[in-house]
Amino acid sequence: MRNRYFRCTIAYDGTAYGGWQRQPNAVTVQELLEKALAQLAGCPVVVHGSGRTDAGVHARAQVASFVAPLYHPLATICRALNANLPTDIRVRQVRTVSATFHARFSATSKEYRYQIDCGTVADPFLRHYAWHHPQPLDVSAMRRAARILKGPHDFTALAAKSERQPVRTISKLSIIPRGSLLTIAVTADGFLYKMVRSIVGALVKVGERRLTVEELRSVLEGRKRTALIATAPAHGLFLWRVTYGKTKRGRPRRVSRVVAATD
Amino acid sequence: MRNRYFRCTIAYDGTAYGGWQRQPNAVTVQELLEKALAQLAGCPVVVHGSGRTDAGVHARAQVASFVAPLYHPLATICRALNANLPTDIRVRQVRTVSATFHARFSATSKEYRYQIDCGTVADPFLRHYAWHHPQPLDVSAMRRAARILKGPHDFTALAAKSERQPVRTISKLSIIPRGSLLTIAVTADGFLYKMVRSIVGALVKVGERRLTVEELRSVLEGRKRTALIATAPAHGLFLWRVTYGKTKRGRPRRVSRVVAATD
Repeated sequence: MRNRYFRCTIAYDGTAYGGWQRQPNAVTVQELLEKALAQLAGCPVVVHGSGRTDAGVHARAQVASFVAPLYHPLATICRALNANLPTDIRVRQVRTVSATFHARFSATSKEYRYQIDCGTVADPFLRHYAWHHPQPLDVSAMRRAARILKGPHDFTALAAKSERQPVRTISKLSIIPRGSLLTIAVTADGFLYKMVRSIVGALVKVGERRLTVEELRSVLEGRKRTALIATAPAHGLFLWRVTYGKTKRGRPRRVSRVVAATD
Repeated sequence: MRNRYFRCTIAYDGTAYGGWQRQPNAVTVQELLEKALAQLAGCPVVVHGSGRTDAGVHARAQVASFVAPLYHPLATICRALNANLPTDIRVRQVRTVSATFHARFSATSKEYRYQIDCGTVADPFLRHYAWHHPQPLDVSAMRRAARILKGPHDFTALAAKSERQPVRTISKLSIIPRGSLLTIAVTADGFLYKMVRSIVGALVKVGERRLTVEELRSVLEGRKRTALIATAPAHGLFLWRVTYGKTKRGRPRRVSRVVAATD
């Protein structure tokens, strides 16, 4: 029997998990998804996610690809996987894809959202889904700081470890207040390790007026992680959307070119 | 030292609790609030809620009154109570009130909201906060049924036990679709036992076209609980708001009069 190539969209509440990626000392989402698939396929199945999410980070629409000898209708596969998974992990959709599709390498952009609960008293319904930050935040200063981060930059200063290709392009960075909830939405062609939580940590420090917009600019241009930047807690972060398809230039994205354009 | 009279607003995620009211075999919200107050006051404190909520039911703004020898500023009392409570229960506000205020007897109306997750696949973030109901619902039929329930009625047929004064007046009953979430908001001068969940059960049955609007009318007029009415699960229900103050006639509400007007 021939294998089929699949792409699935998964939502998960990361509270109970050691993150996306399979690892020895914690239960992870990838592990449970692979187990659910193996039960269904009757053989081991390896799943590739669009990227890792850390312990406690959530996903509204993580994307994963896998190859498996499964011939049921797609809606049946989706239902069967959900029957094999705990209720804090849900497969939202299963589609077939071409053999060249890879959840990570075919992705052209990703959006993360970070929720901050600005209420004086924490909202108990958001205790696992937002960072409670009751001190007042200067949203206009945060927006000025966000403008500095947009576009292509070497984001080493806002990442938890240095990488060989540290340039990423932020195409969208919005700060959206709604009642006492402040949402920071970031879209980029890719993210360095802990980049979103470092950006949130930096923007919040600007909002607290403990870091000026100019100081943030020189931290970014310094291309070195400094003690000025704190990492926001994991539980406010959601992998919101992964986008696939052609770039604006009408060709598949080549990482090296994006880097070359800016460095 | 003289006692002071207090009113507090509390939000709680009911998932882990045996409901509001103190009872022998389950941890309840009232019990934890009374413990937190006793720790602060150094003596037992009895708390009166605006009403009970069942196991698994949530509150966005439950109101409770109590009398205690506490002389700190109100914000300090609020902070200290939250320090003594688990994070799924939060005291949102503490105010002083006159000695005649009683969270239950002074209430003039209450609003409950019930959330239904109509998505094909359940939203993992709503698994404790909405009833997952993937079968299609006829929202216009539900709205026609809601119109029948509005106003003063003997609601015995939509309650889990009969009471001596079974007439309540529903002043608002809205059905609000937003994406795949359907919210039913009910405001009344009071509610019988499991009345909101029975109303939701009935409206959903109408939405499924397993009960006609006319059948619902005759069930209601029959003033007897029948097998036609199911009780919706607890975890979709939120005590949303409790209102105090004068009635429209400009005088404090007298229960007997409201009943007399309709029976």
